[in-house]
Amino acid sequence: MDGQLPDADVDALAFDVFTRRCPSRPTLEHVTGRWGSLTLGALAEGRLRFNELRRRVDGVSEKMLSQTLQALERDGLVHREAQPVNPPRVDYELTPLGQEVAARLIALIELVEGRMPEVLTARERYDAVRGAR
Amino acid sequence: MDGQLPDADVDALAFDVFTRRCPSRPTLEHVTGRWGSLTLGALAEGRLRFNELRRRVDGVSEKMLSQTLQALERDGLVHREAQPVNPPRVDYELTPLGQEVAARLIALIELVEGRMPEVLTARERYDAVRGAR
Repeated sequence: MDGQLPDADVDALAFDVFTRRCPSRPTLEHVTGRWGSLTLGALAEGRLRFNELRRRVDGVSEKMLSQTLQALERDGLVHREAQPVNPPRVDYELTPLGQEVAARLIALIELVEGRMPEVLTARERYDAVRGAR
Repeated sequence: MDGQLPDADVDALAFDVFTRRCPSRPTLEHVTGRWGSLTLGALAEGRLRFNELRRRVDGVSEKMLSQTLQALERDGLVHREAQPVNPPRVDYELTPLGQEVAARLIALIELVEGRMPEVLTARERYDAVRGAR
């Protein structure tokens, strides 16, 4: 951010994840973090209850999922809704912005999944060279 | 991976980041991790030397950048090239697969940066409600 720029330019330049203190950096981390990315990916398939989500995001602890959902809710990517039913039930779903973010994340996930044979070949090659040194 | 499936199906079904032990999960984490995503994003602009990269990825330590580059090189996303010059110089650049991954990552980064005003508004609203409880 540069105070000498006219306002219109400041808006366009204001956020830059490469800058250490930019508030976009923590948001990128919530979105791409270990559990954040899988949580958004799971919710892209539709609204889920906490325990459904926990089963889908294989390996996440209750505490980590809870923290992940709170960060995503605070950033306006996930909507939490306590259903007025008995026994009480809480649903989670993506907001419109969360859906846009999830779509780009899924494009990335699908690329990675689809190219894993190449990645595994590269790993073998790398380890063979390292082992031979 | 299931040995009983015909080969063609195994390829299509083999990798799933939602499954705890799938080898695609660590690769997704290398790509989307705090420093991995910024390193790939920086290298998308062209080949860089270690110290240039370190300046671009504001806040990364030498050790973390080094570990990040090793993981990305092992996954076949980054190519490391020791230049035959004096003094010695090491360049890093994206492989073709790294370029594809970086393009999808940048699409995500640009969306997040561009929508930060919405994110900040959501955070204020969330904190106001929490503070009022």
